[in-house]
Amino acid sequence: MGETVIEKIIHHNTGKKVKPGDIATVSVDRVMIHDIFIPFVAEKFEEMGFQKLWDPDKVVLIYDHLVPASQLDDTRHFHTGDAFAEKYGMIHVHRSDGICHQLMTEAGYVKPGDVVFGTDSHTTTYGCVGAFSSGIGYTEMASILGTGSMWIRVPETIKVVINGKLPENVMSKDVILRLLGDLGADGATYRALEFTGSTVEEMSVSSRMTMANMAVEAGAKCALFTPDEKTAEYCNVTLNDYQKSLVGDEDASYCKTVVYKAEDFVPVMACPSQVDKIRNVSELSGIPIDQVFIGSCTNGRLEDLQAAAEVLKGRKVADYVKLIVTPASRKIYRQAIELGIMDVLAEAGAIITHPGCGLCCGRTGGILTDGERVVATNNRNFLGRMGTSKVEIYLASPKTAAACAVAGKIV
Amino acid sequence: MGETVIEKIIHHNTGKKVKPGDIATVSVDRVMIHDIFIPFVAEKFEEMGFQKLWDPDKVVLIYDHLVPASQLDDTRHFHTGDAFAEKYGMIHVHRSDGICHQLMTEAGYVKPGDVVFGTDSHTTTYGCVGAFSSGIGYTEMASILGTGSMWIRVPETIKVVINGKLPENVMSKDVILRLLGDLGADGATYRALEFTGSTVEEMSVSSRMTMANMAVEAGAKCALFTPDEKTAEYCNVTLNDYQKSLVGDEDASYCKTVVYKAEDFVPVMACPSQVDKIRNVSELSGIPIDQVFIGSCTNGRLEDLQAAAEVLKGRKVADYVKLIVTPASRKIYRQAIELGIMDVLAEAGAIITHPGCGLCCGRTGGILTDGERVVATNNRNFLGRMGTSKVEIYLASPKTAAACAVAGKIV
Repeated sequence: MGETVIEKIIHHNTGKKVKPGDIATVSVDRVMIHDIFIPFVAEKFEEMGFQKLWDPDKVVLIYDHLVPASQLDDTRHFHTGDAFAEKYGMIHVHRSDGICHQLMTEAGYVKPGDVVFGTDSHTTTYGCVGAFSSGIGYTEMASILGTGSMWIRVPETIKVVINGKLPENVMSKDVILRLLGDLGADGATYRALEFTGSTVEEMSVSSRMTMANMAVEAGAKCALFTPDEKTAEYCNVTLNDYQKSLVGDEDASYCKTVVYKAEDFVPVMACPSQVDKIRNVSELSGIPIDQVFIGSCTNGRLEDLQAAAEVLKGRKVADYVKLIVTPASRKIYRQAIELGIMDVLAEAGAIITHPGCGLCCGRTGGILTDGERVVATNNRNFLGRMGTSKVEIYLASPKTAAACAVAGKIV
Repeated sequence: MGETVIEKIIHHNTGKKVKPGDIATVSVDRVMIHDIFIPFVAEKFEEMGFQKLWDPDKVVLIYDHLVPASQLDDTRHFHTGDAFAEKYGMIHVHRSDGICHQLMTEAGYVKPGDVVFGTDSHTTTYGCVGAFSSGIGYTEMASILGTGSMWIRVPETIKVVINGKLPENVMSKDVILRLLGDLGADGATYRALEFTGSTVEEMSVSSRMTMANMAVEAGAKCALFTPDEKTAEYCNVTLNDYQKSLVGDEDASYCKTVVYKAEDFVPVMACPSQVDKIRNVSELSGIPIDQVFIGSCTNGRLEDLQAAAEVLKGRKVADYVKLIVTPASRKIYRQAIELGIMDVLAEAGAIITHPGCGLCCGRTGGILTDGERVVATNNRNFLGRMGTSKVEIYLASPKTAAACAVAGKIV
């Protein structure tokens, strides 16, 4: 009997063939801790009595949620993180380089087929390069830091097949939003999502990243894309036999298979305040908005900013509307400067922030208030996510968001 | 008997020769209101029973302190401002273009010899182009909006003469800091500061702007630089006879004259927590720092960013130190992109924010906490200004600040 991609990864990692429901103890290839959780991880780590990190090279600490600091005691997290990093000889500390999930793949910390954990729910993102990655709590993270291992229950896999060519105005964000609508916010709870088909093969790693990032919004334990030449180039590796093998076998067992025709996709939005409340943009046309947000670990990559710039070039953001743009990393920011994208966005009236999590997690950089409405490219539209609980958040693709910014309403 | 510059401006405005202590009612050429105060101005304006603005063309509304919004109810100020602007037919509303004082001169709202008021203490800035400008409260502003006039007591003038060539590592910020130290924080209370001499003549309008901006830190009612060809070019005007006449007469009466030799200036800092506690940087050398801030209406102009970039090119911000850069306007941001400055700063590790007042006024974008130390190019180092009351703020020039960022300590 064949294996799904997640089964192959766990098999390779543990040396044992597994099936859904099995409990496996995996050797961890890399972990990511961000600024919000480092104080709790550090405390638990010492409480557990560990004397040293199992492998300092495998631990990455990233400051992103609190950079630049917006509250009176935010920088305490940096001091705690810096002290922990120094005490235990950590090598990989990013203090202002961008959003954790972007840096983990962009800076080469995650390779195809790796097993990676992070203290953030959107750690599923690294499935874009064919890694098994998932979010965990700070107690589990402290344990990994000391032992290098972690138990998991082998998840069932839902296979998502998408074939054909996406319409011009449709981005991978529209694809994952539609899938969330169809599966429901709990439709993939503790399951792996395995993406396949010609549409997915045609996608850039960045586009796949958007989908893997939001897989957790359906409750998925992880999301997996088969590594290919694009992946190899992105990760700056030559794929080895194991990495090349990470495709679901024909006779593997899937708990569910969903099939889409790319041509059927249209621009959509997740309406307030559930990620699975999906409507076609055309049904929402004309709803006035106060703000647009383009960025985050979901849609703050170069192709996203480029797509927004194409819409905004020679146009202006509507009066009364604020357009906030947050690149996912400093590298992307610099590339966008070099390509003239940042100038186009600034000329159109965008407010460009430093790469970070500020607005997405409602801490700073464009906080909204009662009765306001925002079209946003990030990954969650929950009540109170970007301001007060009476803010309406519509999730959309960068193309749609940019068009709305110009129109001052949903278009 | 001759006149000082401020006496000439009031004379021209009112048609009457004045002397210090006289009460004069001036016709206002332009006013500036920013986002913090617009709700209070709007309320007072209606309470006073005015039906219309005395001249909508003369009123400028600028959102800068709260852009992008960092607290739950910040955007209420925008809604109030937008509603007021619409109701009374305001033409000049800047919703995210930069810091008020920069925009007032950069966008051509202030001309040499004008009489301008603003709801911000640093409104003294426009003296850089030879305008009489001063900060007022929201009740006074509401009154001007209805009447177009304002009373003032004619200030005495302190003449500041600076001749010679400044050393390479000295910027106009060092000059004004030294002056503040010598005069004291109340040394020019309700007086005009009139700057003259070959050093001042050699300065760019931007450099003069830094000095006029900080004149209020000595308590000055206004600061004045004689308009010249640089002013004309900056303001995009041909100077008329009145504007050309704005130089202090030989036989004018000054309450005090202070004379400096440019060659005597050295890089200095205002030490915590008084603007007039001035020390030579060399005396402070080696003090470790946590953050550096380059920007604000005091030092966020192109020449400031350029100066910082020259220091930072090919270097990196020290580990543990955060460098926050805030251009004074979107125009400056775009120019800095075009000249490659932003890329140099980003490569060095800077956190580049949208043009605004966030960090300078301690709202967001790099807030500090107890025991932290920052070298900053803005204009105030008061207790609690950029975070908790136990943050130490050292004010310095962009050149000095950039050098400190690389060293991780005061150098």
